[in-house]
Amino acid sequence: MLVQKYRDMLSGKSVIRQLAEFATERGKEIGYENVFDYSLGNPSVPVPQEFTDKMIELLTTRESGELHGYSPNLGITGVREAVAASLEKRFGLPYRKEHIFMASGAAGALAHAFRLVTEPGDEILTFAPFFPEYHPYVDLTGAVLKVVPPDLERFQINFEKFEEMLTEKVMAVLLNTPNNPSGVVYSGETLERLAGILREKSGLYGHDIYLISDEPYREIVFDGAEAPCVSRYYDNTIMCYSFSKSLSLPGERIGYVAVSPRCKDAEEMINMCVQISRGIGHNCPPSIIQLAVAEVLDKTADMRVYETNRNLLYKELLSLGFTCVKPGGTFYIFPKAPEEDAKEFCRKALKYDLILVPGDTFGAPGYFRMAYCIDTEKVERSLGALRKFVQEEGYLHV
Amino acid sequence: MLVQKYRDMLSGKSVIRQLAEFATERGKEIGYENVFDYSLGNPSVPVPQEFTDKMIELLTTRESGELHGYSPNLGITGVREAVAASLEKRFGLPYRKEHIFMASGAAGALAHAFRLVTEPGDEILTFAPFFPEYHPYVDLTGAVLKVVPPDLERFQINFEKFEEMLTEKVMAVLLNTPNNPSGVVYSGETLERLAGILREKSGLYGHDIYLISDEPYREIVFDGAEAPCVSRYYDNTIMCYSFSKSLSLPGERIGYVAVSPRCKDAEEMINMCVQISRGIGHNCPPSIIQLAVAEVLDKTADMRVYETNRNLLYKELLSLGFTCVKPGGTFYIFPKAPEEDAKEFCRKALKYDLILVPGDTFGAPGYFRMAYCIDTEKVERSLGALRKFVQEEGYLHV
Repeated sequence: MLVQKYRDMLSGKSVIRQLAEFATERGKEIGYENVFDYSLGNPSVPVPQEFTDKMIELLTTRESGELHGYSPNLGITGVREAVAASLEKRFGLPYRKEHIFMASGAAGALAHAFRLVTEPGDEILTFAPFFPEYHPYVDLTGAVLKVVPPDLERFQINFEKFEEMLTEKVMAVLLNTPNNPSGVVYSGETLERLAGILREKSGLYGHDIYLISDEPYREIVFDGAEAPCVSRYYDNTIMCYSFSKSLSLPGERIGYVAVSPRCKDAEEMINMCVQISRGIGHNCPPSIIQLAVAEVLDKTADMRVYETNRNLLYKELLSLGFTCVKPGGTFYIFPKAPEEDAKEFCRKALKYDLILVPGDTFGAPGYFRMAYCIDTEKVERSLGALRKFVQEEGYLHV
Repeated sequence: MLVQKYRDMLSGKSVIRQLAEFATERGKEIGYENVFDYSLGNPSVPVPQEFTDKMIELLTTRESGELHGYSPNLGITGVREAVAASLEKRFGLPYRKEHIFMASGAAGALAHAFRLVTEPGDEILTFAPFFPEYHPYVDLTGAVLKVVPPDLERFQINFEKFEEMLTEKVMAVLLNTPNNPSGVVYSGETLERLAGILREKSGLYGHDIYLISDEPYREIVFDGAEAPCVSRYYDNTIMCYSFSKSLSLPGERIGYVAVSPRCKDAEEMINMCVQISRGIGHNCPPSIIQLAVAEVLDKTADMRVYETNRNLLYKELLSLGFTCVKPGGTFYIFPKAPEEDAKEFCRKALKYDLILVPGDTFGAPGYFRMAYCIDTEKVERSLGALRKFVQEEGYLHV
C-alpha cells in the first residue's frame, strides 16, 4: 500500500510554489519581464567565471575515474581540508577536515544535523519568521519542530517566549542568520544571550542542547558588514552551509556540515553523518562539483545587485508608509502588510502583477516577503506598480 | 544527546571497505599495480567522450541561471521526457515523464522507493546473495529487511523459501538483476514465476506487493544478451536506476525512479517522491549532470573489458577446480570457497596480495566475491597469484 502520510502531503501545495507558478503563467500572457515576480529565492547573478573555468579544466585534464569516481563517504579529502582551512582563516576556530562532512546543499546538511541529535518525539525549536520547509525537514524525521513567535520589533529573538518553550524535551535549536524571510542578521548580542541560555539549560536538564546553524546566506551581508559567526558563540554548534546562494549554484547541490572544533564529540559526529547517509540515500555531493567548488571557496558571485535592490525597495516601502525592518543581508525583505490579512493583501497585489508572498507560511501572519534576487531594472519598474497598488487600493498615506 | 543508533554503527565497519583500505595500504608498500584488488565495484573504464563534450558545451554556452539554477523537484522536465522516451523505445512500455523521478544515484532512488510503500515495521524481502548496503538502506527507514536464502545451484531465486517468507507483512520485494555479487542475470522464467506469486499473494492478502527493481548493472550483460526487463513481468514495479556503472559516473550521483506505466498509481507515486525528498534532504541530482546525461541516455562506457575479465577469471577458476556459476553480467563473480569458512580463505589470500571479499556479508557464507572492474592486464597477472595460492595452501586438485 502507498504510504498515506506522503499521499496526504500532495494536497498541501506550497504557497510560494503556487505563486511562482502563477507568475510563470502570467508571464506567458504579458511577457515574464512584465511580471514583478518576488516569489522565489533563486539567485539571479551568474556563477563566478573561476568556477566555470575550473569545471572545464577538470573535464579536459583529469582522468575519468579520478574525476567521476566515488567520492569517499565523508567527501573528497582535499576538499574537506580546503573547507576547513577556509573556515579557520575566516572565523578563527581550529577547523580541520575531521570537522567537515560534504553534503548535498543545505537540505542535505540539515537532514544529517537533525538526525545526529534528535530521536523521534524530541523537540527542535526555531524562531519565526522561518523558512517553511523546516517543517517537513524536521517533522518527517519523527522529531517535532516548534516555532518561537517572532520578535516583531526587530526580528531578532523573542527571548521571553523562547525561554518558556525551551523545555527538557528540546534537543536542538535551529537558527537561520542572515534570515529568510526577514533579511535580518542576528546580532552578536542576540547570539551571546542565546548561547548563555542554552548553556544554562543544558546544565539544568543534564543533556546537551545543540545549535543547528543554517547559513546559506552567510555571504550576503550589506553595508560592508559581516554576519557574526554563530559557531564562535556556542561550542555545540552544527553549521550547515550551502554554496547555492553565495556561488549561484542551487541546482548543483553542494554544501557541508561543519561541527565546531570546540564541540566535544565533533569528530565522532562527523563520522556519524556517514551512517546517517546510509539511511537516507545520501551519497556525497557530485565529485566534479566538490572539486570545482574547492577552488573558489573564498569567492562569491557578484552579489552587489542584491544590496542595490534592497536599498531601492526599502526606501520606497518606507516612503509609501510601510513598516519594515531594514534587511542586513540575504535577498529578502519582510514588510508589515497594511491590512491584517496579508494573504488578502498579496491576493490583491496580483492585479498589479506584483507577486508577494504572505507571511503566514513563515510563521508571521500580517507580513509579506519579497525575494529581490531579480534584475535591478525590474525592481525599478516594479516601484511604480507598487505605488499604484497602494494608492488605488487606498492602503497608505502617499 | 547524540543518537545512539548511529553511534553504534560506527564500530561495525564494512568488510568490503576494510579490505579496500588494506589494498590501498599494501599498495603503498609494494606498488598498487602489484595488489590484485578485487574488492570494490568502482568502474574502471572512462566515461563516454560524448558526456564530457556535452558538459563542456553546457558550461560554455548556457546562461548560468539556466544551467545551475534549481532543478524542478521531480527533475528537469526535458530530462524526464528523454528518460521516458528512451525507456519506452527500449522496453516497449508506454513510459511518460509522469512516470520518472530523477534521483541521486540508485541509493537516492531506493531511499524513495522504500518510503513509498513501507511504514515502520513492514517487511521487505530480498534474495541472497545481495548487496549488503540494503540492510542500512531499509533498516534505518524503520522497515525490516528479510533475506531469502540463496538458490545455491544457479543463484536465481529459492522459491520454496521465498513462498514461506512471503507473509502478509511483506509490502515489497527488492530485486537486483544483474546481481551484485553473483553476476547472475535473473531469467525470464524466474521473473515470470516471481510475478505470478506476487500477484497471487497480493490478491490473497488484499494489499499490493510492490517489486522494487534495483538495476544499476542493467547495461552490463555479456554474450550479446539483454537482461529481461523486470517491469515487463510485473505491473507494480518500481525501477531504480543509476548511471554510475553504465556511464562510469558513480561520483556524480545520477539516476532515477521509473514507476511502471502499468502500475495503477504511477503518477501519484512519482509526485509522492517529491514529498519524501523533503524529509530526507534529497533535492534532485545536480542540474548540469542531469542535462549532460540526457544527451547520452542510450550510450554506455566501453564495457567490453568486463566481459574479457569475466572470461579470463571464469575459465581459470574452473580449471583450478572452483565451483562457480557463470556470471551473465555485472563485473562480479561469486565462486564457492574451497573451505567452509570463506573469511579464513580470503584472509589467507591476502598473503598472495589477492583481495577477495568473503560472501558472509552478502548472505552467502562459504562463497567469495571478486569485483573484476580492473584492467585486464592486472587480471592476467593475478591468475598466477591465484594458482600459486591454491597450490601452496593445498586447496584444489591442480
